[in-house]
Amino acid sequence: MSVIKFITGAQHKIREVEQICSSENFPFKIVAHKLDLDEYQGSTQDITIKKCQLAYSIVKSPLIVEDTCLGYNAMKGLPGPYIKYFLEAIGPEGLYKMLTPWSDKSAFALCTVGYIDGKSDKVHLFEGRVEGEIVPPVYSEKGFGFGFDHVFKPNGFDTTFSDLGPEIKHKISHRSLAFQKFRDYILSQNQDS
Amino acid sequence: MSVIKFITGAQHKIREVEQICSSENFPFKIVAHKLDLDEYQGSTQDITIKKCQLAYSIVKSPLIVEDTCLGYNAMKGLPGPYIKYFLEAIGPEGLYKMLTPWSDKSAFALCTVGYIDGKSDKVHLFEGRVEGEIVPPVYSEKGFGFGFDHVFKPNGFDTTFSDLGPEIKHKISHRSLAFQKFRDYILSQNQDS
Repeated sequence: MSVIKFITGAQHKIREVEQICSSENFPFKIVAHKLDLDEYQGSTQDITIKKCQLAYSIVKSPLIVEDTCLGYNAMKGLPGPYIKYFLEAIGPEGLYKMLTPWSDKSAFALCTVGYIDGKSDKVHLFEGRVEGEIVPPVYSEKGFGFGFDHVFKPNGFDTTFSDLGPEIKHKISHRSLAFQKFRDYILSQNQDS
Repeated sequence: MSVIKFITGAQHKIREVEQICSSENFPFKIVAHKLDLDEYQGSTQDITIKKCQLAYSIVKSPLIVEDTCLGYNAMKGLPGPYIKYFLEAIGPEGLYKMLTPWSDKSAFALCTVGYIDGKSDKVHLFEGRVEGEIVPPVYSEKGFGFGFDHVFKPNGFDTTFSDLGPEIKHKISHRSLAFQKFRDYILSQNQDS
């Protein structure tokens, strides 16, 4: 079976993606591939395209990368792709705290998957976006959740990604939606050929 | 007279730098050179080093670049190098507002100059750092100031960079300190040879 390399250092992401892509008649095996890449500044789309092209210039075989962002509407989409630095610096409590001066707590979680099929170096983008709001951190009793899962409450649910648990989160998350689109694209391409 | 290219799109920065480097027996002419460069994520030092090397791979002659950051101590140095995006999204008012949940308003303005002399591609770094605090925006009546000048009050002064005006600001600013170090380095090199 042909391989698509998933350029990531995060094991939890690989599990989530395997779960989505191992189903049905998916014709590729997704394999984690650790690579220290310089990240660019810019929109999450630009960041993903450049990361994908940079990885391809090194790996030279079919691959996917992803970039995740958390945007506060009161801050016009920021911290956006820089959310990881804020999370590291001020933690989930700080992510909620910095928004307290604004009454608008609405936010979106966005995952952008970039895919190069190896036939050319064209980057295909697949976006998964979930609207929600930023709430005081809710930690799962079972220890589930990472990143901004503890403060992001998706619309239509009454608690955070972390508190919803893996079964629900992996169905509705931004990452899940993006990788479902990627999977559907691959399956549609496969039908054509 | 030999030329050092200052890679920037900002006219106000070139004027500030010319003022610092045109004095004394400075042996180079600083010339603005506009170049659209991809910016990297990371520490302000890393960003400057990579920007400098990338510019040199294109320009292939002696050059300087600079990166400016505004770090809030309550946020462990963030927004840091990403301050330009926050400024664009939420303006000076927002820069103050996002810090209101924290009692610690202390901050630092940091300018990092990267210089490649063209004899090798080694990047020399010169840092100027000013400690201060974030205050509600004060706009200069004469329209002076840009970026975060309106909300940054340097320690030892009772108002913001913008309200202090160009004469004082250009003596004490992070950019001024960094370029003074750069100038002194160039002059010391010139004495040696």
